[in-house]
Amino acid sequence: MSQANLERLKSNADHATEVFLRQWPKEADDGLYAPIHYLMSLGGKRLRAVLALSAAEAEGESYEVAMPAALAVELFHNFTLMHDDIMDEAPLRRGQETVHNRWDSNAAILSGDAMFTLSSIALTGMHASVLPSSLQLFNRTALEVCVGQQSDMAFESRDNVSLDEYWNMIRLKTSVLVAASLALGAQAAGADESRVKLWYQLGEQLGLAFQMQDDLLDAFGTAATGKQMGGDILSDKKTFLHIHAWEKASEAQRLEIGRWNGKHHDPQNKVAAVKKIMVELGSDVAARKRMEGCVQAAEGFMDSLELKGEHRDWFDFVAGLVTTRKS
Amino acid sequence: MSQANLERLKSNADHATEVFLRQWPKEADDGLYAPIHYLMSLGGKRLRAVLALSAAEAEGESYEVAMPAALAVELFHNFTLMHDDIMDEAPLRRGQETVHNRWDSNAAILSGDAMFTLSSIALTGMHASVLPSSLQLFNRTALEVCVGQQSDMAFESRDNVSLDEYWNMIRLKTSVLVAASLALGAQAAGADESRVKLWYQLGEQLGLAFQMQDDLLDAFGTAATGKQMGGDILSDKKTFLHIHAWEKASEAQRLEIGRWNGKHHDPQNKVAAVKKIMVELGSDVAARKRMEGCVQAAEGFMDSLELKGEHRDWFDFVAGLVTTRKS
Repeated sequence: MSQANLERLKSNADHATEVFLRQWPKEADDGLYAPIHYLMSLGGKRLRAVLALSAAEAEGESYEVAMPAALAVELFHNFTLMHDDIMDEAPLRRGQETVHNRWDSNAAILSGDAMFTLSSIALTGMHASVLPSSLQLFNRTALEVCVGQQSDMAFESRDNVSLDEYWNMIRLKTSVLVAASLALGAQAAGADESRVKLWYQLGEQLGLAFQMQDDLLDAFGTAATGKQMGGDILSDKKTFLHIHAWEKASEAQRLEIGRWNGKHHDPQNKVAAVKKIMVELGSDVAARKRMEGCVQAAEGFMDSLELKGEHRDWFDFVAGLVTTRKS
Repeated sequence: MSQANLERLKSNADHATEVFLRQWPKEADDGLYAPIHYLMSLGGKRLRAVLALSAAEAEGESYEVAMPAALAVELFHNFTLMHDDIMDEAPLRRGQETVHNRWDSNAAILSGDAMFTLSSIALTGMHASVLPSSLQLFNRTALEVCVGQQSDMAFESRDNVSLDEYWNMIRLKTSVLVAASLALGAQAAGADESRVKLWYQLGEQLGLAFQMQDDLLDAFGTAATGKQMGGDILSDKKTFLHIHAWEKASEAQRLEIGRWNGKHHDPQNKVAAVKKIMVELGSDVAARKRMEGCVQAAEGFMDSLELKGEHRDWFDFVAGLVTTRKS
């Protein structure tokens, strides 16, 4: 049931995206739009679009009223990927060349700017009665995502990032957009302010759980993710696991972690050694516990929203998807 | 009179910008906002903001109704400068270090994205009754500016750019935002659609004239511009002058231009030699004629708008400013 629902909503979102983007064909204008079409063609779960559409349905409206919101959050998300990939010098996105690698950085900067504009254009399709509040939420969210990315980059050159700081960074970089997806979908369906807020809070918890699962999959997942196993460890990325382990580590363990820091010559042993310490210190268990705490909080917001029947089943399924996914 | 008016409107725009940006202090968030404050502190004519405010006054309203539009266009313009300077590898902006030089490219990308968001936030201050149409105009303009920048970059690697193509490029890269500034100011004052369109067309002509003067000043201006004299010629930039001269040039003159192409070792003689050919072929005269044609067309739109008295004097003054400016 829920799997079919997921496919239905994703396919509607995909179709609407394709129709929307036809207004700016990739052949036009010396290639400004080609990178946008390319990035969207690489696929993706379209999680944010699906969430926007399903919030509208749970509010008793057709998913169609939330399509402008769904397009806006999905285009915005992919715009941030295009720019983040430049900043992170990432060679691959969804297993394919990143835009700045396939074209160049300038193309990725400029097409990203155009894509950001397209996400704003999509949002103006919202009903005039909710447009001001939707714009306010969308713009605030966009700014918070920038703040999150800024923190993420700043953390790279810092050795003393606390778990609280990490938590706030992923809230801004990932969660607020998931939260806004649900809240905008609910706004599109005419939900009142108090319900919109509950949808936002539900999304915030799902987003945090999603990011925790991302951290866990990278270190403890299987090759099914399509990402490099242990990539975060290899690049000494300050994930929840890394920060937790560092905070709990003994002098000897810190020496061991420090010994691998910045080393790339022996990837297999580096990943194995750091993971061993993480497991000894219970970092993976702590991450799973945090993730489960988020899901529990999300369920609480579903209660407050009085989600029932198929709608409750659906959002239970979504929470399960987030935490049990393998990729 | 008009000079005092210019100073009044500019100072109001500057003050409102400062108050607006106080919401995002530069000390916050690991420096995401610092580059925005820095770029805005470098000054500038604030032409777009002033135009938005004065269109509202010419429509019989207080300039204050157009302040959201003025902030939006000015912040958007400066955002494009921040990103364009990365793409153009420009070391200086208004005689000071560019953001990507003072910080780094990543900071300029991300703070630019945040600045674009701030411009959208500013625009949401427009009255709800005109918000949908203002958003539509603003977003369309933003996209066109991206297309213009894309063309400008694409022209660099092409030898066969026509004057028509150049004309359309500067229309998109420069004119549409000047046009939107006036049109948004008029919308803010409640002008009807036909008048908004006339304001837009007036701005389009002023923007084109502005760009022609830019091209002329670079090659034939004085050191008062604060820019490198003949910088466009040195970098073989495809300006109106360059394209016009190339189109009219004899075989011998093309050989001479080609001989200097890509050369940087003898800047003074390169600039002198290329300027000599431009003058021989009447490229400077042709550029001035085009510019005057734009101003004449702008005056025609002022007639259609039935601008009278102090308002007519003001816009005549603005047209004069654009074409007689020395920097």
